[in-house]
Amino acid sequence: MNMSDQGILVVVSGFSGAGKGTLIKAMVEKYHNYALSISATTRKPREGEEEGREYFFVTRDHFETMIKEEQLIEYAQYVNNYYGTPRQYVFQQMADGKDVILEIEIQGALKIKERFPDALLLFVMPPSADELKRRLVGRGTETMEVIDQRLHRAAEEAAGMTSYDYILINDKVDSCVEAMHQLIQAQHRKVSSNLDFIEQMKSELRAI
Amino acid sequence: MNMSDQGILVVVSGFSGAGKGTLIKAMVEKYHNYALSISATTRKPREGEEEGREYFFVTRDHFETMIKEEQLIEYAQYVNNYYGTPRQYVFQQMADGKDVILEIEIQGALKIKERFPDALLLFVMPPSADELKRRLVGRGTETMEVIDQRLHRAAEEAAGMTSYDYILINDKVDSCVEAMHQLIQAQHRKVSSNLDFIEQMKSELRAI
Repeated sequence: MNMSDQGILVVVSGFSGAGKGTLIKAMVEKYHNYALSISATTRKPREGEEEGREYFFVTRDHFETMIKEEQLIEYAQYVNNYYGTPRQYVFQQMADGKDVILEIEIQGALKIKERFPDALLLFVMPPSADELKRRLVGRGTETMEVIDQRLHRAAEEAAGMTSYDYILINDKVDSCVEAMHQLIQAQHRKVSSNLDFIEQMKSELRAI
Repeated sequence: MNMSDQGILVVVSGFSGAGKGTLIKAMVEKYHNYALSISATTRKPREGEEEGREYFFVTRDHFETMIKEEQLIEYAQYVNNYYGTPRQYVFQQMADGKDVILEIEIQGALKIKERFPDALLLFVMPPSADELKRRLVGRGTETMEVIDQRLHRAAEEAAGMTSYDYILINDKVDSCVEAMHQLIQAQHRKVSSNLDFIEQMKSELRAI
Protein backbone atom coordinates (compact mmCIF):
# COMPACT_ATOMS: atom_id res chain seq x y z
CA MET A 1 0.00 0.00 0.00
CA ASN A 2 1.41 3.38 -0.94
CA MET A 3 0.62 7.03 -0.95
CA SER A 4 -0.77 8.46 -4.13
CA ASP A 5 1.64 8.41 -7.06
CA GLN A 6 -0.47 10.68 -9.24
CA GLY A 7 1.55 13.79 -10.09
CA ILE A 8 0.71 17.26 -8.78
CA LEU A 9 -0.22 20.21 -11.01
CA VAL A 10 1.96 23.14 -9.95
CA VAL A 11 1.49 26.71 -11.14
CA VAL A 12 4.39 29.12 -10.66
CA SER A 13 3.83 32.84 -11.15
CA GLY A 14 5.70 35.92 -10.03
CA PHE A 15 6.68 39.43 -10.96
CA SER A 16 8.92 39.87 -13.95
CA GLY A 17 12.41 40.01 -12.42
CA ALA A 18 11.55 37.84 -9.41
CA GLY A 19 13.65 35.05 -10.91
CA LYS A 20 11.02 32.34 -11.35
CA GLY A 21 12.51 31.06 -14.61
CA THR A 22 15.94 30.53 -13.00
CA LEU A 23 14.39 28.79 -10.01
CA ILE A 24 12.30 26.41 -12.08
CA LYS A 25 15.22 25.54 -14.36
CA ALA A 26 17.46 24.80 -11.36
CA MET A 27 14.78 22.68 -9.68
CA VAL A 28 14.01 20.62 -12.77
CA GLU A 29 17.73 19.96 -13.29
CA LYS A 30 18.29 18.94 -9.67
CA TYR A 31 15.23 16.71 -9.15
CA HIS A 32 13.86 14.25 -11.65
CA ASN A 33 10.25 14.00 -10.62
CA TYR A 34 9.28 17.12 -12.56
CA ALA A 35 7.99 17.78 -16.05
CA LEU A 36 7.90 21.31 -17.41
CA SER A 37 4.79 22.18 -19.37
CA ILE A 38 5.50 24.09 -22.57
CA SER A 39 2.96 26.67 -23.65
CA ALA A 40 1.61 27.16 -27.14
CA THR A 41 1.65 30.74 -28.46
CA THR A 42 0.79 32.71 -31.56
CA ARG A 43 3.61 35.18 -31.04
CA LYS A 44 6.66 34.97 -33.31
CA PRO A 45 9.79 33.24 -31.96
CA ARG A 46 12.49 35.63 -30.69
CA GLU A 47 16.14 35.14 -31.55
CA GLY A 48 17.51 32.03 -29.82
CA GLU A 49 14.09 30.58 -29.06
CA GLU A 50 13.48 27.04 -30.27
CA GLU A 51 10.22 25.34 -31.27
CA GLY A 52 9.17 23.00 -28.45
CA ARG A 53 11.72 24.35 -25.97
CA GLU A 54 10.48 27.84 -25.00
CA TYR A 55 7.12 27.50 -26.76
CA PHE A 56 5.17 25.65 -29.38
CA PHE A 57 4.80 28.35 -32.02
CA VAL A 58 1.50 28.04 -33.85
CA THR A 59 -0.67 30.12 -36.16
CA ARG A 60 -3.71 31.99 -34.95
CA ASP A 61 -5.95 29.55 -36.87
CA HIS A 62 -4.25 26.56 -35.30
CA PHE A 63 -4.58 28.10 -31.81
CA GLU A 64 -8.28 28.78 -32.30
CA THR A 65 -8.80 25.19 -33.40
CA MET A 66 -7.05 24.06 -30.18
CA ILE A 67 -9.47 26.23 -28.19
CA LYS A 68 -12.50 24.82 -30.01
CA GLU A 69 -11.34 21.23 -29.58
CA GLU A 70 -10.62 21.81 -25.87
CA GLN A 71 -6.99 20.88 -26.28
CA LEU A 72 -5.95 23.60 -23.79
CA ILE A 73 -6.44 23.57 -20.02
CA GLU A 74 -6.18 27.38 -19.92
CA TYR A 75 -5.38 30.15 -22.33
CA ALA A 76 -5.18 33.92 -22.27
CA GLN A 77 -4.45 36.79 -24.58
CA TYR A 78 -1.65 39.33 -23.98
CA VAL A 79 -0.79 42.17 -26.33
CA ASN A 80 -2.74 40.59 -29.18
CA ASN A 81 -1.15 37.16 -28.86
CA TYR A 82 -2.59 33.94 -27.48
CA TYR A 83 -0.78 31.85 -24.86
CA GLY A 84 -2.13 28.52 -23.64
CA THR A 85 -1.31 25.21 -21.92
CA PRO A 86 -1.80 22.06 -24.03
CA ARG A 87 -3.83 19.50 -22.12
CA GLN A 88 -2.45 16.21 -23.35
CA TYR A 89 1.16 16.61 -22.19
CA VAL A 90 0.11 17.80 -18.73
CA PHE A 91 -2.29 14.94 -18.08
CA GLN A 92 0.02 12.28 -19.52
CA GLN A 93 2.91 13.40 -17.31
CA MET A 94 0.73 13.55 -14.21
CA ALA A 95 -0.60 10.06 -14.89
CA ASP A 96 3.03 8.92 -15.14
CA GLY A 97 3.60 10.31 -11.65
CA LYS A 98 5.46 13.47 -12.67
CA ASP A 99 4.73 16.76 -10.95
CA VAL A 100 4.03 19.16 -13.80
CA ILE A 101 5.21 22.77 -13.57
CA LEU A 102 3.27 25.50 -15.37
CA GLU A 103 5.02 28.87 -15.46
CA ILE A 104 2.06 31.12 -16.27
CA GLU A 105 0.61 34.55 -15.54
CA ILE A 106 -1.93 35.28 -12.83
CA GLN A 107 -4.86 35.34 -15.26
CA GLY A 108 -4.19 31.75 -16.34
CA ALA A 109 -3.27 30.65 -12.81
CA LEU A 110 -6.67 31.63 -11.47
CA LYS A 111 -8.40 29.72 -14.27
CA ILE A 112 -6.37 26.63 -13.39
CA LYS A 113 -7.32 26.92 -9.71
CA GLU A 114 -10.99 27.17 -10.66
CA ARG A 115 -10.93 24.08 -12.84
CA PHE A 116 -8.42 22.06 -10.80
CA PRO A 117 -8.85 22.95 -7.11
CA ASP A 118 -6.07 20.52 -6.13
CA ALA A 119 -3.50 22.44 -8.19
CA LEU A 120 -0.76 24.08 -6.11
CA LEU A 121 -0.29 27.81 -6.80
CA LEU A 122 3.09 29.30 -5.91
CA PHE A 123 3.97 32.97 -6.15
CA VAL A 124 7.66 33.94 -6.38
CA MET A 125 8.58 37.31 -4.89
CA PRO A 126 11.75 39.33 -4.55
CA PRO A 127 12.71 40.19 -0.95
CA SER A 128 11.56 43.79 -1.48
CA ALA A 129 10.28 46.17 -4.15
CA ASP A 130 13.67 47.94 -4.19
CA GLU A 131 15.42 44.65 -4.85
CA LEU A 132 13.01 43.97 -7.72
CA LYS A 133 13.93 47.31 -9.28
CA ARG A 134 17.66 46.64 -8.78
CA ARG A 135 17.34 43.30 -10.56
CA LEU A 136 15.41 44.75 -13.48
CA VAL A 137 17.92 47.61 -13.85
CA GLY A 138 20.84 45.21 -13.40
CA ARG A 139 19.78 43.11 -16.37
CA GLY A 140 20.77 46.04 -18.55
CA THR A 141 18.52 44.76 -21.34
CA GLU A 142 15.58 47.10 -20.95
CA THR A 143 15.01 50.85 -21.12
CA MET A 144 13.92 52.68 -17.96
CA GLU A 145 10.52 53.08 -19.58
CA VAL A 146 10.07 49.30 -19.90
CA ILE A 147 11.34 48.80 -16.34
CA ASP A 148 8.78 51.31 -15.06
CA GLN A 149 6.06 49.47 -16.98
CA ARG A 150 7.11 46.17 -15.38
CA LEU A 151 7.09 47.69 -11.90
CA HIS A 152 3.70 49.21 -12.55
CA ARG A 153 2.42 45.87 -13.72
CA ALA A 154 3.87 44.17 -10.62
CA ALA A 155 1.85 46.56 -8.45
CA GLU A 156 -1.29 45.54 -10.35
CA GLU A 157 -0.48 41.82 -10.21
CA ALA A 158 0.12 42.02 -6.45
CA ALA A 159 -3.66 42.27 -6.05
CA GLY A 160 -3.99 38.65 -7.26
CA MET A 161 -1.40 37.23 -4.87
CA THR A 162 -3.90 36.34 -2.18
CA SER A 163 -5.44 33.72 -4.51
CA TYR A 164 -2.20 31.74 -4.39
CA ASP A 165 -1.42 29.00 -1.88
CA TYR A 166 2.16 29.85 -0.95
CA ILE A 167 4.66 32.62 -1.46
CA LEU A 168 8.34 32.00 -2.04
CA ILE A 169 10.81 34.79 -1.38
CA ASN A 170 13.65 34.41 -3.84
CA ASP A 171 16.53 35.67 -1.74
CA LYS A 172 19.10 32.97 -2.52
CA VAL A 173 18.47 30.65 -5.47
CA ASP A 174 19.70 27.44 -3.80
CA SER A 175 17.58 27.70 -0.67
CA CYS A 176 14.59 28.90 -2.67
CA VAL A 177 14.85 25.86 -4.97
CA GLU A 178 14.86 23.62 -1.89
CA ALA A 179 11.84 25.40 -0.43
CA MET A 180 9.92 25.12 -3.72
CA HIS A 181 10.73 21.41 -4.01
CA GLN A 182 9.59 20.79 -0.42
CA LEU A 183 6.34 22.70 -0.89
CA ILE A 184 5.50 20.58 -3.90
CA GLN A 185 6.45 17.31 -2.22
CA ALA A 186 4.35 18.24 0.83
CA GLN A 187 1.35 18.32 -1.49
CA HIS A 188 1.67 14.56 -2.02
CA ARG A 189 0.95 14.10 1.68
CA LYS A 190 -2.30 16.06 1.66
CA VAL A 191 -5.30 14.14 2.91
CA SER A 192 -7.19 15.09 -0.26
CA SER A 193 -4.44 13.47 -2.39
CA ASN A 194 -4.67 10.23 -0.41
CA LEU A 195 -8.33 9.35 -0.06
CA ASP A 196 -7.76 5.91 -1.63
CA PHE A 197 -4.96 5.12 0.80
CA ILE A 198 -7.16 6.22 3.72
CA GLU A 199 -10.08 4.09 2.52
CA GLN A 200 -7.82 1.07 2.20
CA MET A 201 -6.44 1.57 5.72
CA LYS A 202 -9.98 1.76 7.04
CA SER A 203 -11.04 -1.47 5.43
CA GLU A 204 -7.83 -3.23 6.53
CA LEU A 205 -8.48 -2.14 10.11
CA ARG A 206 -12.04 -3.40 9.99
CA ALA A 207 -10.90 -6.75 8.62
CA ILE A 208 -8.07 -7.37 11.09
CA MET B 1 11.03 42.98 5.40
CA ASN B 2 10.51 39.39 6.43
CA MET B 3 8.01 36.60 6.27
CA SER B 4 5.83 36.12 9.31
CA ASP B 5 7.72 35.07 12.44
CA GLN B 6 4.60 34.15 14.37
CA GLY B 7 4.74 30.47 15.31
CA ILE B 8 2.42 27.83 13.87
CA LEU B 9 0.01 25.75 15.93
CA VAL B 10 0.56 22.11 14.98
CA VAL B 11 -1.68 19.24 16.04
CA VAL B 12 -0.30 15.71 15.76
CA SER B 13 -2.61 12.75 16.13
CA GLY B 14 -2.40 9.14 15.09
CA PHE B 15 -3.34 5.62 16.01
CA SER B 16 -1.86 4.20 19.19
CA GLY B 17 1.23 2.34 17.95
CA ALA B 18 1.81 4.58 14.93
CA GLY B 19 4.86 6.04 16.68
CA LYS B 20 3.85 9.70 16.95
CA GLY B 21 5.49 10.16 20.35
CA THR B 22 8.84 8.91 19.06
CA LEU B 23 8.61 11.13 15.97
CA ILE B 24 7.79 14.28 17.92
CA LYS B 25 10.54 13.65 20.45
CA ALA B 26 13.11 13.16 17.67
CA MET B 27 11.96 16.27 15.81
CA VAL B 28 12.03 18.51 18.88
CA GLU B 29 15.53 17.27 19.73
CA LYS B 30 16.84 17.83 16.20
CA TYR B 31 15.31 21.25 15.46
CA HIS B 32 15.10 24.12 17.91
CA ASN B 33 12.15 26.08 16.59
CA TYR B 34 9.63 23.84 18.34
CA ALA B 35 7.89 23.97 21.70
CA LEU B 36 5.99 20.97 22.98
CA SER B 37 2.69 21.75 24.64
CA ILE B 38 2.11 19.83 27.85
CA SER B 39 -1.45 18.83 28.65
CA ALA B 40 -3.16 19.14 32.00
CA THR B 41 -4.96 16.04 33.22
CA THR B 42 -6.93 14.78 36.20
CA ARG B 43 -5.65 11.24 35.88
CA LYS B 44 -3.07 9.98 38.40
CA PRO B 45 0.60 9.96 37.36
CA ARG B 46 1.88 6.54 36.26
CA GLU B 47 5.20 5.20 37.43
CA GLY B 48 8.07 7.20 35.91
CA GLU B 49 5.87 10.13 34.91
CA GLU B 50 6.95 13.54 36.14
CA GLU B 51 4.88 16.64 36.90
CA GLY B 52 5.33 19.13 34.05
CA ARG B 53 7.10 16.65 31.75
CA GLU B 54 4.43 14.17 30.65
CA TYR B 55 1.50 16.15 32.07
CA PHE B 56 0.49 18.77 34.57
CA PHE B 57 -1.37 16.64 37.10
CA VAL B 58 -4.25 18.57 38.64
CA THR B 59 -7.34 17.83 40.73
CA ARG B 60 -10.79 17.66 39.22
CA ASP B 61 -11.72 20.90 41.01
CA HIS B 62 -8.66 22.67 39.64
CA PHE B 63 -9.40 21.43 36.11
CA GLU B 64 -12.98 22.61 36.27
CA THR B 65 -11.78 26.04 37.40
CA MET B 66 -9.43 26.13 34.37
CA ILE B 67 -12.42 25.34 32.13
CA LYS B 68 -14.54 28.10 33.72
CA GLU B 69 -11.75 30.67 33.47
CA GLU B 70 -11.08 29.74 29.82
CA GLN B 71 -7.51 28.77 30.53
CA LEU B 72 -7.73 25.84 28.11
CA ILE B 73 -7.82 26.02 24.30
CA GLU B 74 -9.43 22.58 24.15
CA TYR B 75 -10.29 19.82 26.57
CA ALA B 76 -11.93 16.44 26.43
CA GLN B 77 -12.87 13.63 28.72
CA TYR B 78 -11.67 10.04 28.31
CA VAL B 79 -12.49 7.18 30.66
CA ASN B 80 -13.66 9.56 33.38
CA ASN B 81 -10.57 11.78 33.29
CA TYR B 82 -10.12 15.26 31.85
CA TYR B 83 -7.32 16.15 29.43
CA GLY B 84 -6.76 19.70 28.18
CA THR B 85 -4.30 22.15 26.61
CA PRO B 86 -3.37 25.19 28.75
CA ARG B 87 -3.76 28.36 26.71
CA GLN B 88 -1.03 30.60 28.13
CA TYR B 89 2.01 28.47 27.27
CA VAL B 90 0.81 27.86 23.70
CA PHE B 91 0.16 31.53 22.92
CA GLN B 92 3.36 32.75 24.62
CA GLN B 93 5.51 30.32 22.63
CA MET B 94 3.79 31.18 19.34
CA ALA B 95 4.29 34.90 19.99
CA ASP B 96 7.99 34.13 20.57
CA GLY B 97 8.11 32.54 17.11
CA LYS B 98 8.08 28.91 18.22
CA ASP B 99 5.99 26.35 16.37
CA VAL B 100 3.96 24.66 19.08
CA ILE B 101 3.26 20.92 18.89
CA LEU B 102 0.10 19.51 20.46
CA GLU B 103 -0.03 15.72 20.62
CA ILE B 104 -3.76 15.22 21.15
CA GLU B 105 -6.63 12.93 20.22
CA ILE B 106 -8.96 13.44 17.28
CA GLN B 107 -11.75 14.87 19.44
CA GLY B 108 -9.50 17.72 20.66
CA ALA B 109 -7.87 18.16 17.24
CA LEU B 110 -11.22 18.91 15.60
CA LYS B 111 -12.03 21.48 18.29
CA ILE B 112 -8.67 23.19 17.64
CA LYS B 113 -9.34 23.31 13.90
CA GLU B 114 -12.74 24.88 14.53
CA ARG B 115 -11.35 27.62 16.77
CA PHE B 116 -8.00 28.12 14.97
CA PRO B 117 -8.51 27.45 11.26
CA ASP B 118 -4.82 28.21 10.55
CA ALA B 119 -3.70 25.33 12.77
CA LEU B 120 -1.94 22.52 10.92
CA LEU B 121 -3.40 19.05 11.55
CA LEU B 122 -1.11 16.08 10.93
CA PHE B 123 -2.14 12.45 11.16
CA VAL B 124 0.56 9.83 11.67
CA MET B 125 -0.14 6.41 10.20
CA PRO B 126 1.65 3.09 10.06
CA PRO B 127 2.38 1.79 6.54
CA SER B 128 -0.44 -0.77 6.91
CA ALA B 129 -2.92 -2.17 9.40
CA ASP B 130 -0.85 -5.37 9.65
CA GLU B 131 2.23 -3.34 10.54
CA LEU B 132 0.24 -1.51 13.23
CA LYS B 133 -0.74 -4.85 14.75
CA ARG B 134 2.87 -6.09 14.58
CA ARG B 135 4.08 -2.97 16.43
CA LEU B 136 1.44 -3.26 19.15
CA VAL B 137 2.19 -6.96 19.65
CA GLY B 138 5.97 -6.27 19.51
CA ARG B 139 5.81 -3.87 22.45
CA GLY B 140 5.04 -6.89 24.61
CA THR B 141 3.44 -4.65 27.24
CA GLU B 142 -0.22 -5.27 26.55
CA THR B 143 -2.53 -8.26 26.56
CA MET B 144 -4.09 -9.38 23.28
CA GLU B 145 -7.38 -8.05 24.59
CA VAL B 146 -5.96 -4.51 24.98
CA ILE B 147 -4.33 -4.77 21.54
CA ASP B 148 -7.66 -5.74 20.00
CA GLN B 149 -9.28 -2.77 21.73
CA ARG B 150 -6.63 -0.44 20.30
CA LEU B 151 -7.10 -1.81 16.78
CA HIS B 152 -10.85 -1.50 17.12
CA ARG B 153 -10.42 2.09 18.27
CA ALA B 154 -8.07 2.81 15.34
CA ALA B 155 -10.81 1.65 12.97
CA GLU B 156 -13.20 4.11 14.63
CA GLU B 157 -10.67 6.97 14.63
CA ALA B 158 -9.94 6.43 10.95
CA ALA B 159 -13.31 8.04 10.24
CA GLY B 160 -11.94 11.39 11.47
CA MET B 161 -8.78 11.33 9.34
CA THR B 162 -10.30 13.27 6.48
CA SER B 163 -10.57 16.34 8.72
CA TYR B 164 -6.77 16.51 8.92
CA ASP B 165 -4.55 18.45 6.53
CA TYR B 166 -1.77 15.94 5.90
CA ILE B 167 -0.99 12.33 6.56
CA LEU B 168 2.47 11.10 7.45
CA ILE B 169 3.31 7.45 6.96
CA ASN B 170 5.74 6.43 9.65
CA ASP B 171 7.81 3.92 7.77
CA LYS B 172 11.30 5.03 8.83
CA VAL B 173 11.64 7.41 11.76
CA ASP B 174 14.41 9.60 10.26
CA SER B 175 12.71 10.34 6.97
CA CYS B 176 9.35 10.78 8.67
CA VAL B 177 10.87 13.35 11.06
CA GLU B 178 12.22 15.26 8.04
CA ALA B 179 8.86 15.12 6.30
CA MET B 180 7.06 16.37 9.40
CA HIS B 181 9.54 19.23 9.84
CA GLN B 182 9.15 20.25 6.20
CA LEU B 183 5.35 20.17 6.34
CA ILE B 184 5.41 22.49 9.33
CA GLN B 185 7.97 24.85 7.79
CA ALA B 186 5.95 25.00 4.56
CA GLN B 187 3.10 26.43 6.62
CA HIS B 188 5.16 29.58 7.27
CA ARG B 189 5.06 30.24 3.53
CA LYS B 190 1.28 30.11 3.25
CA VAL B 191 -0.29 33.22 1.78
CA SER B 192 -2.66 33.36 4.76
CA SER B 193 0.34 33.48 7.15
CA ASN B 194 1.87 36.38 5.23
CA LEU B 195 -0.84 38.93 4.58
CA ASP B 196 1.20 41.69 6.29
CA PHE B 197 4.22 40.98 4.10
CA ILE B 198 2.02 41.02 0.98
CA GLU B 199 0.42 44.34 1.98
CA GLN B 200 3.83 45.87 2.56
CA MET B 201 5.08 44.67 -0.85
CA LYS B 202 2.00 46.22 -2.47
CA SER B 203 2.54 49.61 -0.89
CA GLU B 204 6.27 49.54 -1.68
CA LEU B 205 5.47 48.78 -5.32
CA ARG B 206 2.97 51.63 -5.49
CA ALA B 207 5.49 54.04 -3.95
CA ILE B 208 8.44 53.13 -6.19
